[in-house]
Amino acid sequence: MTMTISHNALANAIRILSLDAVEKAASGHPGMPMGMADVATVLFKDFLRFNPTDADWPNRDRFVLSAGHGSMLLYSLLYLTGHPECTLDQIRSFRQWGSLTAGHPEYGHMPGIETTTGPLGQGLATAVGLAVGERLMNARVGDDLINHFTYVIASDGDLMEGVSQEAISLAGHLRLHKLIVLFDDNDITIDGRTSLSTSDDALQRFQASGWKAMRIDGHDPAQIQDAISQAQTHDRPTLIACKTTIAKGAPTKAGTSSSHGSPLGAAEVEATRKALNWPNPPFEIPADILAEWRAIGQRHQQTYQQWQDRYQQVTPEQITKLKKAISADWHQPLNALKEKFANEQPKQATRQLSQTVLETLVPQLPNLVGGSADLSGSNNTKTKTHHAVTAEDFSGNYVNYGIREHGMAAAMNGLSLYCGFIPYGGTFLVFSDYLRPALRLSALMQQGVIYVLTHDSIGLGEDGPTHQPIEHLASLRAIPNVNVFRPADGVEVAECWQLALEQRQTPSVLALSRQAITPARLSHTSENLCAKGGYVVRGNASASQVTLIATGSELGIALDAHQQLEAQGIQSHVVSLPCWRLFDQQPKEYRQQVLGKGLRVGIEAASAFGWSSYLRSDDIFIGMNGFGASAPASVLYEQFGITVDQVIKKINEKLLEKEKK
Amino acid sequence: MTMTISHNALANAIRILSLDAVEKAASGHPGMPMGMADVATVLFKDFLRFNPTDADWPNRDRFVLSAGHGSMLLYSLLYLTGHPECTLDQIRSFRQWGSLTAGHPEYGHMPGIETTTGPLGQGLATAVGLAVGERLMNARVGDDLINHFTYVIASDGDLMEGVSQEAISLAGHLRLHKLIVLFDDNDITIDGRTSLSTSDDALQRFQASGWKAMRIDGHDPAQIQDAISQAQTHDRPTLIACKTTIAKGAPTKAGTSSSHGSPLGAAEVEATRKALNWPNPPFEIPADILAEWRAIGQRHQQTYQQWQDRYQQVTPEQITKLKKAISADWHQPLNALKEKFANEQPKQATRQLSQTVLETLVPQLPNLVGGSADLSGSNNTKTKTHHAVTAEDFSGNYVNYGIREHGMAAAMNGLSLYCGFIPYGGTFLVFSDYLRPALRLSALMQQGVIYVLTHDSIGLGEDGPTHQPIEHLASLRAIPNVNVFRPADGVEVAECWQLALEQRQTPSVLALSRQAITPARLSHTSENLCAKGGYVVRGNASASQVTLIATGSELGIALDAHQQLEAQGIQSHVVSLPCWRLFDQQPKEYRQQVLGKGLRVGIEAASAFGWSSYLRSDDIFIGMNGFGASAPASVLYEQFGITVDQVIKKINEKLLEKEKK
Repeated sequence: MTMTISHNALANAIRILSLDAVEKAASGHPGMPMGMADVATVLFKDFLRFNPTDADWPNRDRFVLSAGHGSMLLYSLLYLTGHPECTLDQIRSFRQWGSLTAGHPEYGHMPGIETTTGPLGQGLATAVGLAVGERLMNARVGDDLINHFTYVIASDGDLMEGVSQEAISLAGHLRLHKLIVLFDDNDITIDGRTSLSTSDDALQRFQASGWKAMRIDGHDPAQIQDAISQAQTHDRPTLIACKTTIAKGAPTKAGTSSSHGSPLGAAEVEATRKALNWPNPPFEIPADILAEWRAIGQRHQQTYQQWQDRYQQVTPEQITKLKKAISADWHQPLNALKEKFANEQPKQATRQLSQTVLETLVPQLPNLVGGSADLSGSNNTKTKTHHAVTAEDFSGNYVNYGIREHGMAAAMNGLSLYCGFIPYGGTFLVFSDYLRPALRLSALMQQGVIYVLTHDSIGLGEDGPTHQPIEHLASLRAIPNVNVFRPADGVEVAECWQLALEQRQTPSVLALSRQAITPARLSHTSENLCAKGGYVVRGNASASQVTLIATGSELGIALDAHQQLEAQGIQSHVVSLPCWRLFDQQPKEYRQQVLGKGLRVGIEAASAFGWSSYLRSDDIFIGMNGFGASAPASVLYEQFGITVDQVIKKINEKLLEKEKK
Repeated sequence: MTMTISHNALANAIRILSLDAVEKAASGHPGMPMGMADVATVLFKDFLRFNPTDADWPNRDRFVLSAGHGSMLLYSLLYLTGHPECTLDQIRSFRQWGSLTAGHPEYGHMPGIETTTGPLGQGLATAVGLAVGERLMNARVGDDLINHFTYVIASDGDLMEGVSQEAISLAGHLRLHKLIVLFDDNDITIDGRTSLSTSDDALQRFQASGWKAMRIDGHDPAQIQDAISQAQTHDRPTLIACKTTIAKGAPTKAGTSSSHGSPLGAAEVEATRKALNWPNPPFEIPADILAEWRAIGQRHQQTYQQWQDRYQQVTPEQITKLKKAISADWHQPLNALKEKFANEQPKQATRQLSQTVLETLVPQLPNLVGGSADLSGSNNTKTKTHHAVTAEDFSGNYVNYGIREHGMAAAMNGLSLYCGFIPYGGTFLVFSDYLRPALRLSALMQQGVIYVLTHDSIGLGEDGPTHQPIEHLASLRAIPNVNVFRPADGVEVAECWQLALEQRQTPSVLALSRQAITPARLSHTSENLCAKGGYVVRGNASASQVTLIATGSELGIALDAHQQLEAQGIQSHVVSLPCWRLFDQQPKEYRQQVLGKGLRVGIEAASAFGWSSYLRSDDIFIGMNGFGASAPASVLYEQFGITVDQVIKKINEKLLEKEKK
């Protein structure tokens, strides 16, 4: 291939496409694509291994635009290199209803978008998960099949967000040497110059976490090329700080914060066209330049074919590992365990029962990658057969994420996006607050990441209100596309794990107790009753005056109350409601039948917020209406009135009141 | 004062008290207090300026135990130095119901606890706010009145959490040279050795953010003393990494992760007593050692008296600045502005109206400290009279927090805890996810921090689902002691600001629109109607068939629907519900009267989660039931069916359905 087209012409194609699209949308971020056009051109032209017509090629290099607001950089590259879904029409309908070219890159909109970015820091932290995925898969299927780089373009904002530190630190610890971060070091944020709010030495900071780091002129193709070439040889992850001018090419707005998040305006667009010697009308790329870009898109055809040839020769097991496929082998042992729980009635904490489930599942599911944010023993996430992932050995299946909940969740997103991995990770339920931005992306990207969140109520006791979740069940239930499971006993724990594993397009939260529970399910059924989200676990709904509705550790209170009511001659039934979202998806008839016609009592050691979906204004809620306190769990339940006695007392009062009416 | 008691005896008093208390509670964290006893002893004996009988002395040094799980370190010190509230009985009832000695230090439980800690990273990040507070107050009232150090004890966990990076970076940028962090560098976390999950060079990391950093033997009193002395002279914040042995003194468990979070057990406690040559029974401190500690508590009496003498001579304005007092001067201008809004009916975004309010308030409220996480122009948080805080000049009243939402919120907690400051800070509502752990502490500590969260719905348009809050109103409303305000027009914005400012024990969220709104309040009333949380803004509730309930930018839809229903001959009334929590606190009668007896329609461009508190199963909710999308705001409202037409259509369907029954 003879290079007749200059680097500048190639880079300017990105600049002009980006500013045209932003101008037409009358909203967007032109500065970043224009500033990083040179870096991106060199990366795509000389390094990035990809195939536009098979964007999911497992051994492609991953490219993550962490600075997602610069989405037009990515869309320009996808269009120019010939990704069939990224047409010129898509570029023209940037940021419009129904287009695939959203304001920020949305995973699933089109191939070539490796992950959803925009909330700052997430792309970088997710890329660490992708890079871990590469090493794990490499250790499983060998160099011949998986051996590629993960490139990230990150902005000042990405590096200022705390989650970036968690990600950088984890990447350095695991020596993810195939991770290369290109930092758009343009000294500009939305509010003005970065000197308004930061004085960090980025190179030193990354070096402190064991990275290689260098600084280059981000507009000099030779320096960019040298830097990436060097980075590829490092035995550590590499930061390349690229000194750039935001909106490079725009005569008056280059280097200013005004070019960050608004269209340049017709006059400046015109002036930029002149300055870049680009006479063509909007969205029109000269044929020779487009041809050169398309040729770049075809550069790796031979490599791709060779890979396909190797792929034809590998074992079925290797192929299985590369695909998001769960073998069916695990259903039978899980069902056997359910039966065992139903027979033996273990009175353990649900977190311990979860560990028992994992002891069965982990050997059956090679794609499962466990971990915890330094609470392995408390979250009961680590099993006897687990083997830790280290910088020296990536054959393991357990990640010690460190005290980095947010970094863990983002890395799990990366792992989930990486071929066939199913990640789960643990922390305390209250610390789900630390990882919410990443959990939200699990939901938005439809990734079946599993969050094992233990110590799920005041039942954790003495650690006190800072560690006792109150509003967390509600605040997680409120997120679209998240299944929040709060199983009540061993059988439910097994069923909820099954549902979490099977649902690959919805993240799951498993809220588990610190304290021992009362077994609720007294006989075995092979049907997964938790799949309906809620069901009658005791009593006869149609003959009942009182419905006792509870989740998790409070189901035991409901069961005891049921028994006492029976003794009083009051008919009641008990509903276990382990997953509201699944219950809400059931037919209305089923829901009404389960919830019953009589007085309803909701019991959950948490905020009442949201319970009004099931309780009418005359019903009863037994739970928390403020923060917890530090004391032994049993004292707290007593003091906060979450007891069988309180339940009975309030029911009797209410029934008396109703009689009087 | 002759020193007859050795350093070791003083430090061992902390060790023994801590392990006794943990042993009696049968839960807690003995390792950290035992490991850091030497550092704490030197700090309290030779440096920390405090007065146990006036723990709120404004010019005291601040001591923040960021590693809050080591709470017995703090309680031991408070008891030993003679803080009257921290009695031996309190130590004995560590972690019990009703005691002031909670599992983690709880602000407000007793003087001497500067801030609630436990969720890792929060103490350090809050301390940065305290240290900013010190500099701000110093610039306002002078060296004579405010000039002290802020000391932090931080753990590996504190430094691994991302929020620590945001805090470190901000502290370095502002050159908070009176901030000194003592890092308990013990190489141990809950899961084992720190080498399981981190390889960071802490010194280099802090240096990269402009800190001074050094490493010492944390068990050598001379080294500790030298290090703190040096740190006091630095023109930068200082990190002192103290190499320590966790549970120092425990013969078999010292240096192991098993001593982190569990009682040592009777045998090890016994062995520790022997090893430390401490024959006394539990909780008994030998008289001479206690006397020496009490003398340490009295060391600064003279300094304290001298300060009090100076304080008697200062101006009333200086005194006002030091106290959490709001002058009443601002009510009148705010009321005038309300009247102006009622008369002029500005059709602006509520974020812009909020800026107008701030233009009035900021000059009137010298204690108000504004800021934004790099979205000043978008959050409309910066006014014409604001003056930025910089490393060179702390007389300002606006903090450029950088792209560090979490660090901002924690720093605001520190500012709020610091004498008279009232902090507010801005970001997009969707990014409240990044700062939740700190916001939760605002609520738990009863600090009236004000969160200005703009771009509060799909109404932000093209930036798409990553930037569009859906579940955020619900998830914030679910937190105890948080007032979530979503004002609908200028008048409501002014009223909600007033409520947020007046409520000093409850943090407030102001959820503000990006897009222009329809004014709702057509006439002026000096009464603050938003104070009731919800009220009838149009129509006659008693004669109404349909109640239209809305918040913020959707109130305009309700008003238009009301008009159309009138035209159809259907009586309706419109309820504005800017603050659910305040509404829920009104008498039942009022609430029923406002909500009406007819069909209810809730309208909010957000998740329905929680709306069932006001809507019965037969009512209508118009809002979101999934994530948003990237398109112009008006298109999104149309596509997601949040329009007047949809409201009318659904009401007509429902009324017809009811007629048929």
